[in-house]
Amino acid sequence: MLRWLTAGESHGPELVAILEGLPAGVPVTREAIQADLARRKLGYGRGARMKFEADQLDISGGIRHGVTMGSPVALRIGNTEWPKWTTVMSPDPVDPAELTGGRAAPLTRPRPGHADLVGMQKYGFDESRPVLERASARETAARVALGAVARAFLGELGIRLVSHTLSIGPVRVPDDAPLPRPGDVETLDADPLRCLHPETSAAMVAEVDAAHKDGDTLGGVVEVLAYGVPPGLGSYTHWDRRLDAKLAHALMGIQAIKGVEVGDGFETTRRRGSAAHDELVPGDGVVERLSDRAGGTEGGMSTGTVLRVRAGMKPIATVPHALRTIDTATGDAAPAHHQRSDVCAVPAAGVVAEAMVALVVADAVLDKFGGDSVAETRRNLEAYRAAIPATLATAVITGD
Amino acid sequence: MLRWLTAGESHGPELVAILEGLPAGVPVTREAIQADLARRKLGYGRGARMKFEADQLDISGGIRHGVTMGSPVALRIGNTEWPKWTTVMSPDPVDPAELTGGRAAPLTRPRPGHADLVGMQKYGFDESRPVLERASARETAARVALGAVARAFLGELGIRLVSHTLSIGPVRVPDDAPLPRPGDVETLDADPLRCLHPETSAAMVAEVDAAHKDGDTLGGVVEVLAYGVPPGLGSYTHWDRRLDAKLAHALMGIQAIKGVEVGDGFETTRRRGSAAHDELVPGDGVVERLSDRAGGTEGGMSTGTVLRVRAGMKPIATVPHALRTIDTATGDAAPAHHQRSDVCAVPAAGVVAEAMVALVVADAVLDKFGGDSVAETRRNLEAYRAAIPATLATAVITGD
Amino acid sequence: MLRWLTAGESHGPELVAILEGLPAGVPVTREAIQADLARRKLGYGRGARMKFEADQLDISGGIRHGVTMGSPVALRIGNTEWPKWTTVMSPDPVDPAELTGGRAAPLTRPRPGHADLVGMQKYGFDESRPVLERASARETAARVALGAVARAFLGELGIRLVSHTLSIGPVRVPDDAPLPRPGDVETLDADPLRCLHPETSAAMVAEVDAAHKDGDTLGGVVEVLAYGVPPGLGSYTHWDRRLDAKLAHALMGIQAIKGVEVGDGFETTRRRGSAAHDELVPGDGVVERLSDRAGGTEGGMSTGTVLRVRAGMKPIATVPHALRTIDTATGDAAPAHHQRSDVCAVPAAGVVAEAMVALVVADAVLDKFGGDSVAETRRNLEAYRAAIPATLATAVITGD
Amino acid sequence: MLRWLTAGESHGPELVAILEGLPAGVPVTREAIQADLARRKLGYGRGARMKFEADQLDISGGIRHGVTMGSPVALRIGNTEWPKWTTVMSPDPVDPAELTGGRAAPLTRPRPGHADLVGMQKYGFDESRPVLERASARETAARVALGAVARAFLGELGIRLVSHTLSIGPVRVPDDAPLPRPGDVETLDADPLRCLHPETSAAMVAEVDAAHKDGDTLGGVVEVLAYGVPPGLGSYTHWDRRLDAKLAHALMGIQAIKGVEVGDGFETTRRRGSAAHDELVPGDGVVERLSDRAGGTEGGMSTGTVLRVRAGMKPIATVPHALRTIDTATGDAAPAHHQRSDVCAVPAAGVVAEAMVALVVADAVLDKFGGDSVAETRRNLEAYRAAIPATLATAVITGD
Repeated sequence: MLRWLTAGESHGPELVAILEGLPAGVPVTREAIQADLARRKLGYGRGARMKFEADQLDISGGIRHGVTMGSPVALRIGNTEWPKWTTVMSPDPVDPAELTGGRAAPLTRPRPGHADLVGMQKYGFDESRPVLERASARETAARVALGAVARAFLGELGIRLVSHTLSIGPVRVPDDAPLPRPGDVETLDADPLRCLHPETSAAMVAEVDAAHKDGDTLGGVVEVLAYGVPPGLGSYTHWDRRLDAKLAHALMGIQAIKGVEVGDGFETTRRRGSAAHDELVPGDGVVERLSDRAGGTEGGMSTGTVLRVRAGMKPIATVPHALRTIDTATGDAAPAHHQRSDVCAVPAAGVVAEAMVALVVADAVLDKFGGDSVAETRRNLEAYRAAIPATLATAVITGD
Repeated sequence: MLRWLTAGESHGPELVAILEGLPAGVPVTREAIQADLARRKLGYGRGARMKFEADQLDISGGIRHGVTMGSPVALRIGNTEWPKWTTVMSPDPVDPAELTGGRAAPLTRPRPGHADLVGMQKYGFDESRPVLERASARETAARVALGAVARAFLGELGIRLVSHTLSIGPVRVPDDAPLPRPGDVETLDADPLRCLHPETSAAMVAEVDAAHKDGDTLGGVVEVLAYGVPPGLGSYTHWDRRLDAKLAHALMGIQAIKGVEVGDGFETTRRRGSAAHDELVPGDGVVERLSDRAGGTEGGMSTGTVLRVRAGMKPIATVPHALRTIDTATGDAAPAHHQRSDVCAVPAAGVVAEAMVALVVADAVLDKFGGDSVAETRRNLEAYRAAIPATLATAVITGD
Repeated sequence: MLRWLTAGESHGPELVAILEGLPAGVPVTREAIQADLARRKLGYGRGARMKFEADQLDISGGIRHGVTMGSPVALRIGNTEWPKWTTVMSPDPVDPAELTGGRAAPLTRPRPGHADLVGMQKYGFDESRPVLERASARETAARVALGAVARAFLGELGIRLVSHTLSIGPVRVPDDAPLPRPGDVETLDADPLRCLHPETSAAMVAEVDAAHKDGDTLGGVVEVLAYGVPPGLGSYTHWDRRLDAKLAHALMGIQAIKGVEVGDGFETTRRRGSAAHDELVPGDGVVERLSDRAGGTEGGMSTGTVLRVRAGMKPIATVPHALRTIDTATGDAAPAHHQRSDVCAVPAAGVVAEAMVALVVADAVLDKFGGDSVAETRRNLEAYRAAIPATLATAVITGD
Repeated sequence: MLRWLTAGESHGPELVAILEGLPAGVPVTREAIQADLARRKLGYGRGARMKFEADQLDISGGIRHGVTMGSPVALRIGNTEWPKWTTVMSPDPVDPAELTGGRAAPLTRPRPGHADLVGMQKYGFDESRPVLERASARETAARVALGAVARAFLGELGIRLVSHTLSIGPVRVPDDAPLPRPGDVETLDADPLRCLHPETSAAMVAEVDAAHKDGDTLGGVVEVLAYGVPPGLGSYTHWDRRLDAKLAHALMGIQAIKGVEVGDGFETTRRRGSAAHDELVPGDGVVERLSDRAGGTEGGMSTGTVLRVRAGMKPIATVPHALRTIDTATGDAAPAHHQRSDVCAVPAAGVVAEAMVALVVADAVLDKFGGDSVAETRRNLEAYRAAIPATLATAVITGD
């Protein structure tokens, strides 16, 4: 069982994350985590904050000499802007007289599409500062850092993840475009929108430019692929053991996600049964599937083909041309607070989604194979693969 | 905290379900549960089994004199076909000589789109009988029964659920059709496809007929609505506390679901930010939202407007014109086993989805309001509503 | 991960139990479960109910042809007294006019030492019937049934459990008496108090007789031993992963248990460090421990020696010479209700404790070794044992 | 639901702890947390490390201006010795040539009574450094810090905790000594052994001196009391909801604890039923209990009287006169590593136990009363108390 918690506010001193339950012996380097944190800031259409939001990483526990110890892994991501916020976000009581200036002003104009209004109702706040500080997508940096650790574990088992942008607003990669593979990750990360299809990427850039010019924002869809997944992660035996259900939980648990699909998702609902499933045929010493519409799950279990899931992100709710809201101090109509100016955060959402998938798959691997060291988990996984009878066996899809 | 487990196989003696953590004092009648079980069999395009699959309900514990006691609620749903299966599905060892006839034949031709092949790989079976017995959608009867109990609890708090069919294959309710309300449930259940829009329903019937004629199957999309939900269920403070994430978990945890949406879902990803959120304006003594694109959640919390989620179901995988598969006894190509003959199970999926939403919302209510008796939970809920300051308060959307 | 829920009331139609997460391929027979249910009724000093409380077992799911399928195991234990209680404990509403006679009388004199008074406060009841129906120790039959299933799983891995009575009231087995072994179980079960030490057993019988004569009741201490446990179940890495902590949770979760010990327990607190631990010495090709004071755990992990835990049970609270209480209908002083007449239930508590230990150890095994079939779990366990270097290895203590 | 994770190694840079699920509005000061961290170092018989192990506290999230925000609370406790360990415990890879000196030597002589040997077996280590770094009792500082936060929450609800030392080795507070109350905490903390009974405290000091002179170590028993607890926390409805079971889990989850008792614990097992329970009588407008043998729980629920639990700690396993062990590098006999020199850590264990009880009770409060702000939780709790009918009501035991 893998457990993880994150903490920290957007303008607080730091984010903190603990990942509990990972086996010992996983090689994890600071560089790998920082590389993923940097990938989270990628993407055309990001505002100024992405540039100054330096992600200073500290490893507090669980890793020694570059290898996990089996104890909880704790990571911290410092906020370089913290010196500007030491009073407003001070954990210690402050003299009210010191709470002056723009940063200290009570936030009483809740932004539609954000947690602001409901957060105030729920927690009994008279302003939305405590809400937006935690609800902010900055928190996803903590998940990405943990996801990098989970990915390192999966990598030791031959499981590799890829994420890419499938659509930005109405602009979408054609259905017949080939799926990205692990070898494409560098190319993807170099693309302004993390899209492998050059024509679509160019159209996405144009779409972002148009929205920016109009003072508007964009959403889109990202897809995460996992290669090298063994068959049989998750289970049909109880609904909450289903791998697809856990992935949906994790992806919908990302800020601004409003839809989740496994494989062809909603498109599948429009097909007839004869054209919706993946037929099985005898292959070269293994059973083969003629298609991968299901996205690598059947009966809530990984099939051993490429795991493929999607998350749909709504456009950024902090629209430059401010949305209408009310001022909770007076009850009057007012324009919403405007705290940042990205046009589009979809490319980054792919990296966050990748992290969540990594954590879910790592947990499912441990559920099936156990293991207190990566050597033990790998030994168990390999013995399982070896024990599948020839007439049932399917090939490992490495993506190479 | 609400926990529930279900057990039982499709052709076993019965399904069993336990719901643990429900407060005392909830009026629950056998009739209400049986009514929901009957609703689960609704829908044009169902095969013969729906007719003979009588749902004999037994209440084993947790309810006395029509009211919950706070102890775990246990329900059983008998299988009237059991006499035909006592040998094949016997829990006790049987003489192999008795295992004769069609029902006893080993199932070695795994059906694409089902759990069969992966289940055999995962659990080490040499046939798929033990897999399909549990992976079968018959298990959802147990969830529907528990969902009826959860709905009774929610009803005491003024929360009411409605489900309906949004699409069957390519036929879909127009976007501008009004949302069904609690008062429409009888009409919905009387419609052959549980669709409130008469023209669409008629087109759906035609679509089912066409698929049936072609020996094919259909999927579709269902939507669940919850009225009377208070603001603030779920939370932005940790990803797995988000109500939308929990709903996605529960809905994707239903057999055959491949996509989940909250509110306008993927459609939102194609809109610009200025047209994607729900603006706030001063209303008649309360804050009002000008739209409900978000589906009743912001920041992972219920907003107090109508909660609205969707689940997309793939077409039934047991296609009358059998899909290609392999025979695992020989490794040769073979047609897939064909165990049932529904054309479309989407209307029933709406009832199952409703049950899962009821369970998730009931759990979220207990998480926020606690309570060991329904009177205590209601008192806490009402005190919370009353304590929200006037400038933050939103109206209760009862749907009446 | 192993999950289990029980349901059912003492005088309801039946108890129901579901065990979710057990691998496939575990041989489980009805006879083995019924044998454990019968063992739960053993013991000198039990009242009349133990004789007529026949435990009719039904297997509702999860087991086919005597072998688990990996799906949830569901068991039911019928209540042969149910015909007398169909009105008083009816799940359906009953005409109040029918609620007559002794069984139907409201229970308004809460019994000290029972859940009665607090249960009424907590759940808002005006009588204690709904409380005592669920709080009753009859519920432990459901745990014993599930424990028998867990024991069958452990047996496939060479892990065997033994429970015995260590003390009854002030009468206690001498500290230097040898520990019972798996081969002693029949002898233990044949002893009136499940005590292996004949002189102590005789003194216990006398103690029970004396208490019975005085209209009084007795408690005592039981001990559970597990042989064949591999080293490394549980973990020091997080407090709630500790095997000793989980065992304490499970044992204190049994009705009437007021104390739990691992190994020598509180006696250890009175020793000095030089005489409190188990020194290590080179043995015959393995590392040996010179003693087993720790009870088979170090650092919250099983050491591979005999796992040894104890539970201390208070005397039965329903004392024949009724304790003082109040009548909640009037507020006046009154004698407590008296519902049964055992003098001592300690021998049975050993069987219940054994079941809880079986469930906890089975869960810990799955946590470390994973596995969806017992063959897979065993293969992983054996590979782990084989991979421990010779200078670290310890012998398996089978108890044979 | 309250969740918490801790991370960090004994000689790593810091401990990190996250507490997730606490309501907003709880006043928490850095001083209160640091005061509890200082209390954890109290006690006669502690070695040098307690003096230099300064607990530098950082608050990373969840608290703003001295008040919780409802978001996860994250705390860090720096290790002032870290500069000496930066190479040996470096999270980053280090040049093996730098790993010289005593601190860097592989630890191949596992200490009996510690996690060392089993940890090496379980995690596949060739030395025990990674084991003892995490298994060390230093980790309890993180729990104490979180416990201080939980205590602040409970304090807002009128629930106050007291811990004290009941015995050191064979020296024990007389049974008839009065229980400490909240007003005694300062006196307790000023006592060298956190014992309220002066004669016993003096005898304990002598016992520690004698053990120290003999190069030996001591264990003992601590007791935690909670005043102001409402009736009805926990439940009899399912074993793992029992408050006593949860407390046993938490207390046995502390390093070196081998026994747990609720109320009179094992002493109760030696009493007869007529003298073992707490009789109820009509009191001054409330129901009164004539004794408190049960320790404030009946049926797994808090009764509203003083909650009273005990934990028995084994003597420190690192005995100055080293225990026998083997050298895992050679298989030869060797003396155990000796890493610290406390004679007795029992007084500190009381503070750790208090923290664990605070966390468990806080979680149980939220389970029953819910609440996202402390005002909401308190309102729900007060309404519950007010709704208990007069003939069932019991007095609040504040301990004042």
